[in-house]
Amino acid sequence: MAKKPGIARGTRDFSPVELAKRNYIFDTVKKHFQTFGFQPIETPSFENSETLMGKYGDEGDRLIFKILNSGDFLNKTNEEDLQAKNSLKIATQISEKALRYDLTVPFARYVVMNQNDITFPFKRYQIQPVWRADKPQNGRYREFYQCDADVVGSTSLWQEVEFVQLYDAVFTDLDVAVTIKMNNRKILSGIAEVIGAQDKLIDFTVALDKLDKIGEEGVKKEMLSKGITEEAITKVQPLFSFTGSNTEKLSQLKDMLATSETGLKGVEELAFIINTIETLGLQKATLTIDVTLARGLNYYTGAIFEVAAPKEIDLGSIGGGGRYDDLTGIFGLKDKSGVGISFGLDRIAIVLEQLNLFPEAVNDTIDVLFINFGEKEALASFKLVQQLRTAGYKVDMYPEAAKPAKQFKYANKRNVPFVITIGSQELTDDTFICKNMQTGEQKTYNTKDILTIF
Amino acid sequence: MAKKPGIARGTRDFSPVELAKRNYIFDTVKKHFQTFGFQPIETPSFENSETLMGKYGDEGDRLIFKILNSGDFLNKTNEEDLQAKNSLKIATQISEKALRYDLTVPFARYVVMNQNDITFPFKRYQIQPVWRADKPQNGRYREFYQCDADVVGSTSLWQEVEFVQLYDAVFTDLDVAVTIKMNNRKILSGIAEVIGAQDKLIDFTVALDKLDKIGEEGVKKEMLSKGITEEAITKVQPLFSFTGSNTEKLSQLKDMLATSETGLKGVEELAFIINTIETLGLQKATLTIDVTLARGLNYYTGAIFEVAAPKEIDLGSIGGGGRYDDLTGIFGLKDKSGVGISFGLDRIAIVLEQLNLFPEAVNDTIDVLFINFGEKEALASFKLVQQLRTAGYKVDMYPEAAKPAKQFKYANKRNVPFVITIGSQELTDDTFICKNMQTGEQKTYNTKDILTIF
Repeated sequence: MAKKPGIARGTRDFSPVELAKRNYIFDTVKKHFQTFGFQPIETPSFENSETLMGKYGDEGDRLIFKILNSGDFLNKTNEEDLQAKNSLKIATQISEKALRYDLTVPFARYVVMNQNDITFPFKRYQIQPVWRADKPQNGRYREFYQCDADVVGSTSLWQEVEFVQLYDAVFTDLDVAVTIKMNNRKILSGIAEVIGAQDKLIDFTVALDKLDKIGEEGVKKEMLSKGITEEAITKVQPLFSFTGSNTEKLSQLKDMLATSETGLKGVEELAFIINTIETLGLQKATLTIDVTLARGLNYYTGAIFEVAAPKEIDLGSIGGGGRYDDLTGIFGLKDKSGVGISFGLDRIAIVLEQLNLFPEAVNDTIDVLFINFGEKEALASFKLVQQLRTAGYKVDMYPEAAKPAKQFKYANKRNVPFVITIGSQELTDDTFICKNMQTGEQKTYNTKDILTIF
Repeated sequence: MAKKPGIARGTRDFSPVELAKRNYIFDTVKKHFQTFGFQPIETPSFENSETLMGKYGDEGDRLIFKILNSGDFLNKTNEEDLQAKNSLKIATQISEKALRYDLTVPFARYVVMNQNDITFPFKRYQIQPVWRADKPQNGRYREFYQCDADVVGSTSLWQEVEFVQLYDAVFTDLDVAVTIKMNNRKILSGIAEVIGAQDKLIDFTVALDKLDKIGEEGVKKEMLSKGITEEAITKVQPLFSFTGSNTEKLSQLKDMLATSETGLKGVEELAFIINTIETLGLQKATLTIDVTLARGLNYYTGAIFEVAAPKEIDLGSIGGGGRYDDLTGIFGLKDKSGVGISFGLDRIAIVLEQLNLFPEAVNDTIDVLFINFGEKEALASFKLVQQLRTAGYKVDMYPEAAKPAKQFKYANKRNVPFVITIGSQELTDDTFICKNMQTGEQKTYNTKDILTIF
């Protein structure tokens, strides 16, 4: 007997109803990407290993799925490494391709390879799966979609303004009141300068981020335990009561970072974005300054974004991004500043599910089912099926002339809203009966009126 | 210096304009899949190796991309196999996952695993990439999209009728006059019976297929050389002048296969489909019987489809499919008949390109570009950008206040149809100038009229 099949660990099938929901999110995001002037690209699922390896740190490298070379792959291995069963070294000898780990590095490769054909600034979006050999666990998969929009080739802060508006446009359309948190790498550098401890910046922000939970004293205690001096902490005292409006926060930051040129530059950048957004207005989102925000610290050089779901949802960030001044430098193309954001699709789906925000129209059913009463009736039905389909309706005829009860059961199971029957009487009369499955109401129509009844 | 990056052999990047073209085809196909009541599913990119291996024959197995296990994979290998450098045996020990080779086997797995949740008959479509370790060559890639629609759980011939209509609907929409060729596995079995040589059926059809090129005598010579007897050839003499209408062909087949019960069953099935389609009519496609059609002979059990591009295009088939009575049997679920078709997306793209059938609207540009004259003007512009985007237009503002000549050059390079400028005068007057980049014509409007000018 055939073995019962399984699905690979950490991967998922998507059923029609699950896909309908995902596509609702994808389509909404895509629509706004396009009105904001972003263009789609797609890159291959696998890249030459050398393109990916060494770009994500040791931990990242370890999580990259490697593809085994075809044919007699052991033939070309180093004898010594093989005898020593050195998996790490042998891996590079028997595998020259790897599944993409994110969309950023392939995008950088794309830009460098196509730099002569691209008109800069280049605004691209990309929605494709990525793969990571992570330990699968609740909500963490080995295959998942990333959804990125980036601009490369401009340092203008209008890009940052646009990304705030883009988040607002998408989440307003999805009816989710998100908070867009912003920070700037230069502000963080300024804080490090002021506290005189560049190397303790991460400890500092991690501790500060706990203000809500452990209070000012708790945070200060943690900072001291990490080797940050009392004197340094005093210098950034304003951060412990860092509430108020964005304008108030900007003013506090300006005072606090008065001695740091870099820090002031960061405040100026952030102020431009915040003030412009203030003038232009947002629809549903709230924009707020959060100096504890430090995503991918070593990567970003300017603005840092993060999107938080509404408070009632207990979930991490559902989007984020920032500016990185040297995206394509890893492949030898210097001086192309980039800024980009991503949408966390799986988490956005969780938010919409929990808030019950998927529209009713997002389902896996059809508009009309025709009941099959035999060859002649089916032929008459099929003429109407054809007309409805051409008009854009989703229509099906039950394929066999099974017992009507069975066919109606099928319609119910699939939640079909309307069922049309053509029996021998209707065949003679050139009519059909349409039953509203919700109300049970049914009515006879002339076949020539088929396109007018819905 | 960073190494110049490359792309993995046999894979492709898709630029915005290439994607716009591909999406035009995808969207057209999807639209009709949906009106025909098909529902999308998606399966993971990789499967457990045991799900895929042994399903595609030895040649297929060889072309499956295997994913290297993570971590210390050599640790679990058989010492003897490793010493012998037996790549074939070691492969199964260091790799337990593989990239999907087609969409059919994953679909069968999906149906078997979800059989209790699926309402049969189940009509699904699936458009996803597949991977094959083929030697890359002109038009053959290691990563390419497959696009399949199948129905599982019904033996009704109405499904076959629908698939002919579906091909017609899609290719009519794409404006391509295709020929849909049909055959039936049972007719081929009948022919084998009649010529008394079941094992020579493939030789027979391959030879017959050359009729146009090498003529009747050439074909007969080839058949004889393959060991098909003169007597057998005489029995199927009608096939050598097998032209005429479909009705005439059906009648000839009926006579020729009079002694074969299976053959007659095949003629009856084909006749139902042909006659029903005749009654219902096709839009742009031509349906024709082709008894040389034998795609995947061992796989199909009933109808066989193939779609040929218009004669002026020198290209193989651009679609095909058929009925297989035991799709899910490989995973232990018996008696689920299936029938399905696929669309050859890469080849369809070639056809549309060669016949110049991509609509003009399929491009990678935006609707309007705003010129950036500095901070104040940019802010005024952005208010209009926002309104246009909300109304669904694709709009951009040049991010920097670069020289106008440079910004207009950018607009030209990207083929932007309209450019809007707000200079200091317009800022004062609360107006903007809109320039038609095709005609050069430009006109001043009030900002409040922004949504009325396109």
